[in-house]
Amino acid sequence: MAGNSFGQFFKLTSFGESHGKAVGGVIEGVMPGLELDMDFIQGELNRRRPGQSAITTPRDEKDKVELLSGVLDGKATGTPIGFVIWNADQRSKDYGNIQDVYRPSHADYTYQSKYGIRDHRGGGRSSARETIARVVAGAIAKLILKKYGVEIAAYTSQVGGIKLEKSYQELDLTKIESNIVRCPDEEVADKMIEYIDQVRRDKDSVGGVITCVVKNAPIGLGEPVFDKFHAQMGKAMLGINAVKGFEYGLGFKATELKGSQHNDEFYMDGDQIRTKTNRSGGVQGGITNGEDVYMNVAFKPIATILKEQNTVNKQGEEIVSTVKGRHDPCVLPRAVPIVEAMAAMVMVDMIYLNKMYS
Amino acid sequence: MAGNSFGQFFKLTSFGESHGKAVGGVIEGVMPGLELDMDFIQGELNRRRPGQSAITTPRDEKDKVELLSGVLDGKATGTPIGFVIWNADQRSKDYGNIQDVYRPSHADYTYQSKYGIRDHRGGGRSSARETIARVVAGAIAKLILKKYGVEIAAYTSQVGGIKLEKSYQELDLTKIESNIVRCPDEEVADKMIEYIDQVRRDKDSVGGVITCVVKNAPIGLGEPVFDKFHAQMGKAMLGINAVKGFEYGLGFKATELKGSQHNDEFYMDGDQIRTKTNRSGGVQGGITNGEDVYMNVAFKPIATILKEQNTVNKQGEEIVSTVKGRHDPCVLPRAVPIVEAMAAMVMVDMIYLNKMYS
Amino acid sequence: MAGNSFGQFFKLTSFGESHGKAVGGVIEGVMPGLELDMDFIQGELNRRRPGQSAITTPRDEKDKVELLSGVLDGKATGTPIGFVIWNADQRSKDYGNIQDVYRPSHADYTYQSKYGIRDHRGGGRSSARETIARVVAGAIAKLILKKYGVEIAAYTSQVGGIKLEKSYQELDLTKIESNIVRCPDEEVADKMIEYIDQVRRDKDSVGGVITCVVKNAPIGLGEPVFDKFHAQMGKAMLGINAVKGFEYGLGFKATELKGSQHNDEFYMDGDQIRTKTNRSGGVQGGITNGEDVYMNVAFKPIATILKEQNTVNKQGEEIVSTVKGRHDPCVLPRAVPIVEAMAAMVMVDMIYLNKMYS
Amino acid sequence: MAGNSFGQFFKLTSFGESHGKAVGGVIEGVMPGLELDMDFIQGELNRRRPGQSAITTPRDEKDKVELLSGVLDGKATGTPIGFVIWNADQRSKDYGNIQDVYRPSHADYTYQSKYGIRDHRGGGRSSARETIARVVAGAIAKLILKKYGVEIAAYTSQVGGIKLEKSYQELDLTKIESNIVRCPDEEVADKMIEYIDQVRRDKDSVGGVITCVVKNAPIGLGEPVFDKFHAQMGKAMLGINAVKGFEYGLGFKATELKGSQHNDEFYMDGDQIRTKTNRSGGVQGGITNGEDVYMNVAFKPIATILKEQNTVNKQGEEIVSTVKGRHDPCVLPRAVPIVEAMAAMVMVDMIYLNKMYS
Repeated sequence: MAGNSFGQFFKLTSFGESHGKAVGGVIEGVMPGLELDMDFIQGELNRRRPGQSAITTPRDEKDKVELLSGVLDGKATGTPIGFVIWNADQRSKDYGNIQDVYRPSHADYTYQSKYGIRDHRGGGRSSARETIARVVAGAIAKLILKKYGVEIAAYTSQVGGIKLEKSYQELDLTKIESNIVRCPDEEVADKMIEYIDQVRRDKDSVGGVITCVVKNAPIGLGEPVFDKFHAQMGKAMLGINAVKGFEYGLGFKATELKGSQHNDEFYMDGDQIRTKTNRSGGVQGGITNGEDVYMNVAFKPIATILKEQNTVNKQGEEIVSTVKGRHDPCVLPRAVPIVEAMAAMVMVDMIYLNKMYS
Repeated sequence: MAGNSFGQFFKLTSFGESHGKAVGGVIEGVMPGLELDMDFIQGELNRRRPGQSAITTPRDEKDKVELLSGVLDGKATGTPIGFVIWNADQRSKDYGNIQDVYRPSHADYTYQSKYGIRDHRGGGRSSARETIARVVAGAIAKLILKKYGVEIAAYTSQVGGIKLEKSYQELDLTKIESNIVRCPDEEVADKMIEYIDQVRRDKDSVGGVITCVVKNAPIGLGEPVFDKFHAQMGKAMLGINAVKGFEYGLGFKATELKGSQHNDEFYMDGDQIRTKTNRSGGVQGGITNGEDVYMNVAFKPIATILKEQNTVNKQGEEIVSTVKGRHDPCVLPRAVPIVEAMAAMVMVDMIYLNKMYS
Repeated sequence: MAGNSFGQFFKLTSFGESHGKAVGGVIEGVMPGLELDMDFIQGELNRRRPGQSAITTPRDEKDKVELLSGVLDGKATGTPIGFVIWNADQRSKDYGNIQDVYRPSHADYTYQSKYGIRDHRGGGRSSARETIARVVAGAIAKLILKKYGVEIAAYTSQVGGIKLEKSYQELDLTKIESNIVRCPDEEVADKMIEYIDQVRRDKDSVGGVITCVVKNAPIGLGEPVFDKFHAQMGKAMLGINAVKGFEYGLGFKATELKGSQHNDEFYMDGDQIRTKTNRSGGVQGGITNGEDVYMNVAFKPIATILKEQNTVNKQGEEIVSTVKGRHDPCVLPRAVPIVEAMAAMVMVDMIYLNKMYS
Repeated sequence: MAGNSFGQFFKLTSFGESHGKAVGGVIEGVMPGLELDMDFIQGELNRRRPGQSAITTPRDEKDKVELLSGVLDGKATGTPIGFVIWNADQRSKDYGNIQDVYRPSHADYTYQSKYGIRDHRGGGRSSARETIARVVAGAIAKLILKKYGVEIAAYTSQVGGIKLEKSYQELDLTKIESNIVRCPDEEVADKMIEYIDQVRRDKDSVGGVITCVVKNAPIGLGEPVFDKFHAQMGKAMLGINAVKGFEYGLGFKATELKGSQHNDEFYMDGDQIRTKTNRSGGVQGGITNGEDVYMNVAFKPIATILKEQNTVNKQGEEIVSTVKGRHDPCVLPRAVPIVEAMAAMVMVDMIYLNKMYS
């Protein structure tokens, strides 16, 4: 299997399955001398953790991160940071009955086809548990971004058909953590929570959209041909489990506009060149222009539902499958920190690359 | 500047600006012995070429490709293929008046900020002329894909508010080239053409959507963590000029569905495991499952319009800018072969990588 | 810090300092289904371990490897293998007196200059303890090579001025492990051991040469321009601590010969094309030709000696330094498995890449 | 074929065979604003050119470089520089008789085995003509290094058994170009020239050693685990045609010394930490320490000799082969600028990477 690393200079290489001994990884490119605020890092993990609310899976995985290297007296030495999170609550028995079943829209069949073997215990590498490593690396990336004044905030902007119509400018982003669905508009959040709860009772799942905003992005990030800022950001987001689409700025809505409606005119804000509008989402020609970056990430309803479904097994028999176990009916609340983590890693990586032009 | 290469094993490294001597590149990873059908390669370039119809820019750039290496008696030797396309019709005078102007929503300002210097003659590397190299590499990738039976077809499915409502299964994809807007539905195509013509007369531009379909994709392509099939495909598409969004399968529409509505149930088609529906777009867990891959690519209206716009110049003065020159009011018809080229390159790259598991 | 990964397809990413909690890494590219013979892997670690003989450092580090992922029922699943080796016996006190001292020919000064911070406890990443991760990855690479019939054997061919004059063809390579210096000629081995013991008593250190032989290398490995077989092998060996030179085939001796003396004439060995001589060391034009690969790796005497030396400290004062602690007078016996590990990793990586041409 | 790129940030991707239309490449990572001194670049190519003296092959290839992109008004724009050198004097007839012959110690057999096809006209990619692209990129790298005050000088220090015994400190490196063999000691140079001439008359070839010195290397270059300074430099040198070995500092001679004889003691040179001796060759722990870097590159006698040799052909018949054509009896004088070019590229690449720590 290839593709277990993300980033070029700030780089995460991750390992681990949901039912092995541990998940973890190696983080390269942490600035020597950076204070590694363990409370912050663990706090980010807690935001991703299952069992944190009534609408997420009741597995209480704890997920305590342990740094194994690259640290001296609480500061990064610049050498790679190896880390592990032990898999305390494995309960692989729960998955025993699905060992030979190809669950609809799961990775079971494609893994088996590609590798000729698969870890049936909870999905192996396709398990969302793999994203723990991303949150650890993303938390450290956020600590680096603080030095540059860059802020990243993501929130749930849609669950099923329930859409937050307000733009990010109209919202108070400090309220994201004030409810369990991580939507900063209390009224919409209540509807989302109610809907997710209904879906859970129906033994079903539901998709949605996460919006991510990057404020104070330095001007000049991104490489303007194949590695455009948004191409790298898009790849990062499309690499998260269950993501089906990515857009930035006006995104798909821009397709209906004329140039005269979409172009962002420049003006002078004192000595600073700015744009009057920001339909471009902070990126022009693949390079950041200093305005806010904003983007949407589309999540499908996760494949695991507790309803009966028709499917086939490894023996090529058509069967009816029922999945047991504990599963999130809606992955979005817990995916918010993952989206932020990916954005943070991309930002740090590009900031590093940009130093070469200075 | 980094990021001028695309692909890992089938790899294009491109160079060239719109007003330098030539654009071109180096293609690595071409199978030894492959017949290099020059008529096909040139034909693909002709599809991208300006001046091919009433609705594209009247520059007649010819764009004859010349292979400089890697070929012996019409066959690839396996060594890198260097190629150039000379910039015959440069007319850099047309751009003289905009040397110091930051055109709204263009790459002028971000390039200047990042590099401290920019090639004002036609946009430098941000010029769509750079995509010539992609079409050459994509054409060779298509020749390789023929050996694997893989077919790629893209078409214009939306221009401004005019949307082709039919799915790709309801269309005759052999009709894509039957009209100048490259929409396989004649009736919708006529509306699109009429609309683009109106926009052109208004000195404006318009965006839209290109849909791309990959048939007969081998099972097992894609690396399931950071380098998921669709993450790599998404990065490829987001790297095309003017792209604002990417989705595959049901994409953003999937966000409104429940798992029971979105999941693709498996069944046995003779000896072959297939899915009854294909909402997943041929990808599950980041790996192709053998069903058709389909995806949408969102293009904004291109920034260059012939209307007056408010902007600033390098001296920090607020000015009114008018652009002259020859420009496409709608980039989509000519972007169709570019979308196909990127898809073809991704496919070959992943097929190569997959050989390591055989 | 960059450069903690080795290999492209069979890839090790390592972490860990001598005095952190653990050293370890992530291994990607292990074939699904491979039996992970833990006794063999641990056995390779034991060959590298300090304290194994009278002429190596008496630290008994044990170095038990623990695999954290990528394994199911004793077989590789193909997913990345995370592993750790805990640092049981740290005794960082021993190094306390050298915290501010730049030890001559050590990495102290260059680390401090590059990173502005350094882990003084035993050398940080420059510690030979980092090589544990290489031996683990190399052991798994050897398990893969067994499937291809490839055999790798390294041995100590020189210690100080004591040189093994016999070529590898004249030696019985099964005797490498029969003595503590890992020289397959008993008589020469005895001299080496005696000399190392003398050097140890003199509180000094001594260098030497390790010869490495690869038998049954498949024909066609290596990429003939920048990534020639021997260029990749050379980089691998030069990346081992204390290495000052690399040569393959006749190496530096070839410089004195004429073409008519150095060329290897081809002949037919039944149906097989072979060379009568093998001065080329199994590589022609950067690609393996099926003959044995052989190469020499030059090790300097390690910098840590227990004698007094003149040096300076961080404060810029000229001082006399004395190092305490437990150190190998000659690194070569323990470096033999490291040389083999690097060679094994390179071989597997190239075999994988070559599959793309099949 | 993979492996046609060298460098990570300052990167050359090369293409071209000796008998195709052209050789050339793409250079990425040139600083925006750099003056591209074409006389200097062409001058470097002239140093590599055949036919420049009585002891090199009489082909007069001219080798005029043409830059196709990345330049505006004589300055680099920062975008990739595409370049070509046309193959004017191809005369492929000369090689007609060897189409099916596997020349001893040539790449013919290994290419055919690996790719199943080969360009018999002059060796294809294994032709030394490929190195033209390296010299172009190296010349631009040298222009960048001038801004950092870094100087690189290589010279022929051995031809066959004739060795220049003086160290680089004892030589006047400004005299390298004063004779056709590029040895800065006139007396030794005369012997080398006489010997090469004798070898040429004997229809034979001869090997030798090139020494390369880097002065004013910044402190802190190199990544101390797998990508040590000397590991990257070694890979660069081992990637040059006909190279069989690499050493830096005392190299293989260091193997005979004790630590107390080899260690470089630090002292204060005013405010600057320096080493009294420089046996390490300017590198400690894989990182440059600010002292001069020096290294030796071993070249075998080139395989092409005009004498009769026993060999086999593609049909598996044992034959006697005679090669015609024009060939260098000793590759070293023309390889001097290639060694310098590789060293320059490595230096720029590492200087760029190091900016990330600033």
